[in-house]
Amino acid sequence: MTHWIAGKWLSGEGASLCSKTPYDASILWEGKGATAQQVASAVAAARAALVDWRQSTFAEREAYVSAFVDVVKQNKEHIAQTIAQETGKPLWETRNEAAAMVGKATISAQAYHERTGEHAKTVNGNQVVLRHRPLGVMAVFGPYNFPCHLPNGHIIPALLAGNTIVFKPSEQTPLCGELMVRLWQQAGLPDGVLNLVQGAKETGIALAESKGIDGLLFTGSAQTGQLLHRQFAGQPGKMLALEMGGNNPLVVSNHYGDVEATVYTIVQSAFLSAGQRCTCARRLYVPEGAHGDALLERLIEVTQRLVMGTPFAEPAPFMGPLISQAAAKHILHAQAKLQSQGASALLEAQQGSHAFVSPGIIDVTKVADLPDEEYFGPLLQVIRYQTLPQAVDLANDTRFGLSAGLISTEDKEWEFFITHIRAGIVNRNRALTGASSDAPFGGPGDSGNLRPSAYYAADYCAYPMASMEGACTVLPEQKSPGLSF
Amino acid sequence: MTHWIAGKWLSGEGASLCSKTPYDASILWEGKGATAQQVASAVAAARAALVDWRQSTFAEREAYVSAFVDVVKQNKEHIAQTIAQETGKPLWETRNEAAAMVGKATISAQAYHERTGEHAKTVNGNQVVLRHRPLGVMAVFGPYNFPCHLPNGHIIPALLAGNTIVFKPSEQTPLCGELMVRLWQQAGLPDGVLNLVQGAKETGIALAESKGIDGLLFTGSAQTGQLLHRQFAGQPGKMLALEMGGNNPLVVSNHYGDVEATVYTIVQSAFLSAGQRCTCARRLYVPEGAHGDALLERLIEVTQRLVMGTPFAEPAPFMGPLISQAAAKHILHAQAKLQSQGASALLEAQQGSHAFVSPGIIDVTKVADLPDEEYFGPLLQVIRYQTLPQAVDLANDTRFGLSAGLISTEDKEWEFFITHIRAGIVNRNRALTGASSDAPFGGPGDSGNLRPSAYYAADYCAYPMASMEGACTVLPEQKSPGLSF
Repeated sequence: MTHWIAGKWLSGEGASLCSKTPYDASILWEGKGATAQQVASAVAAARAALVDWRQSTFAEREAYVSAFVDVVKQNKEHIAQTIAQETGKPLWETRNEAAAMVGKATISAQAYHERTGEHAKTVNGNQVVLRHRPLGVMAVFGPYNFPCHLPNGHIIPALLAGNTIVFKPSEQTPLCGELMVRLWQQAGLPDGVLNLVQGAKETGIALAESKGIDGLLFTGSAQTGQLLHRQFAGQPGKMLALEMGGNNPLVVSNHYGDVEATVYTIVQSAFLSAGQRCTCARRLYVPEGAHGDALLERLIEVTQRLVMGTPFAEPAPFMGPLISQAAAKHILHAQAKLQSQGASALLEAQQGSHAFVSPGIIDVTKVADLPDEEYFGPLLQVIRYQTLPQAVDLANDTRFGLSAGLISTEDKEWEFFITHIRAGIVNRNRALTGASSDAPFGGPGDSGNLRPSAYYAADYCAYPMASMEGACTVLPEQKSPGLSF
Repeated sequence: MTHWIAGKWLSGEGASLCSKTPYDASILWEGKGATAQQVASAVAAARAALVDWRQSTFAEREAYVSAFVDVVKQNKEHIAQTIAQETGKPLWETRNEAAAMVGKATISAQAYHERTGEHAKTVNGNQVVLRHRPLGVMAVFGPYNFPCHLPNGHIIPALLAGNTIVFKPSEQTPLCGELMVRLWQQAGLPDGVLNLVQGAKETGIALAESKGIDGLLFTGSAQTGQLLHRQFAGQPGKMLALEMGGNNPLVVSNHYGDVEATVYTIVQSAFLSAGQRCTCARRLYVPEGAHGDALLERLIEVTQRLVMGTPFAEPAPFMGPLISQAAAKHILHAQAKLQSQGASALLEAQQGSHAFVSPGIIDVTKVADLPDEEYFGPLLQVIRYQTLPQAVDLANDTRFGLSAGLISTEDKEWEFFITHIRAGIVNRNRALTGASSDAPFGGPGDSGNLRPSAYYAADYCAYPMASMEGACTVLPEQKSPGLSF
């Protein structure tokens, strides 16, 4: 049983899907995707459930979210294990992902009230009230890298605001998607408020094209995001919130301070989750000269020794495989292409078994036309620079703008960086991969459509309704000119 | 001299433009529109000015806005007279528009800090800082009905946030556009921070298509807004904020209370600014039966006596002409078409001299397929209904969703209305035409793209930048597994 529509589990009638572990190719999940007709029935179920759900009070909806969080807490180890199996991420990391799902509830309720919610005051004897209303039926498209945490970051704010949902997980992580929905079922969510359709591209197109949706919340690649943006052209009233990729620069100043701590920060930025976080550092700017050389040397040593392994291995690995063999090939292909363009591998990424790729560090300083692409894996490009302003110019030379960082002990350098860099997440002396849960998330350019998520997700889940209210109509003493009563 | 580019007044090189008073066809303004090349130079000027402007402090930018407000105050009567000449709105109304320009400064600064701005806190020894950054070069497209107040509502928030601007006024109100920009010049705004290009469709297309803009803030018709939305397809990183029209319902309950006060509220809703406000009531739902009949009878009497006249007439008129003879013809054509579809005029709108059209009230209850169009003028459609839920269903049966209202002394009816109606501005016993300046403005559906303006304009003028900051990199005692140092 693959799809959850109107509170019933149904078999798929579309193309066959299969999910395998990326570390030993065991089959985890098999099913058939949703056809366009099944997508339509999921949308219809969400529309039908909307009538009551949007009329419920915030407290009522919040109670369902709390019940879900309780179920998540009870199942946190099962969740962590499932994510680890399907994505190959180490168990210690997927335990953090399960914990992040719990944290999302409180922060989303807080954001709902602060960014949206209801506020009233009296102005000149009138009640002036600002309410916020749900948009309606929202499609949620989840990614594979955080197959639970990221869709959860759309689903909870959307439900709290009073929307109903049709959720399509990544076709690479259907098991995680199904698990999430089963937890909501266990929490007693009313039928049709959340619906699940599984499937690949054709299911996605059917859902995005559905006339019955009022919006689509997407986390995924820039390529798919742009397709969706074209698909939504001429429908301005439909909400489209896109969180896409980045080609994120991490600039190391000559004043980087302690070499060990700096190497640690770089490794965490570039190789956490095997480089499969959209905030991961892709480009490392290192000053020319001996001080920069020393840092690189140590970075290569530490990276070379970094333990890669299966999610449940003991002792725990730092990172696992990529999501799929295709993803692994893509990274190795990118490395080879950069090499053919004049890059030199300082530490060559190498193919392991299944979807494993060892971390690579590649000096691309001499590549004339460095492709502005997101390599979604453990491949760090190094560029040597002469002056900080030059490094910031190079760092900004991207169509993306998700995350960026500076490693420097000098306040003046940070001042310069923070006023000149163009990105939505900009850290100093901290890994790029640790986004704060109570901050907005997103970036300009091809990283998104300026509908930031996380703390600002409340904004795209509701529209404001401004009211002036009086108990009765009034005929004022001072009437508009030109009227006679 | 027609265009203000990089601090210089330049002649246009495009098609000839001419602005005439809509009440006696006197020529007010003549010039030539901007060519695509001139638009490009305006965008380049804004881009060049952005370097310094975005780096200036909020206080510095706020000081320019304060200087502008001082100039507006000094010139308020001149502003009111110019708007009255070019739009034909009565002087008492355009004086309110000039005053609204002043009010915009304080409210925009407050919204900047509340919705965006900068906030810092310490979490686990890290500085967690949320900043907001300007988007870059913003195109502002102004409408003709509030030719100063509405573009001002984009320009002030955009400048405060650190953006630079290319402003294209409506081709129907070039004189008001020029006046506004001259006031900014008088306030000493640095060259290139605000640029003015005049022109009609071809100038608008050139500006919207420009690769050099980072966003476009539009107030105008749904038709143009949808074209812009298509033009922006596949460019998700560009901000497009659309404020479009409405086909706004005003529902009168059987419990409408005092008939005189209710008629006053309806007249203010339907005929203020000769029906040229996007929040104006277009559809009036009146209960069947004697009580509804009595209300309509009195509404027709009062509307019939309503004084229409030139803006400077003494005593002052309630309303002036429409913006143009073409706009007047459009309303009369709509009335004739509704009549041919079975509507009966309760008070027939009639053509006056030049662009004058007297207010019309037309019963469309019997029209089978009532067109879901915005008639931007003094034509009020009446629909008789049986039950309130039925009236609300009919009220919601529109692709738009800008404003809506209920006239009722019964709290229970209001409760029902406010939970079932779909619109961004929803008033009780108050005219639809009085939006609160410190509330967001906008609506779902074809009324906009859910980028609400007014108090929420801050949101579309800046993107969030979230930072974690430490003085130096840290090698924690508890490192991630799988790393050895």
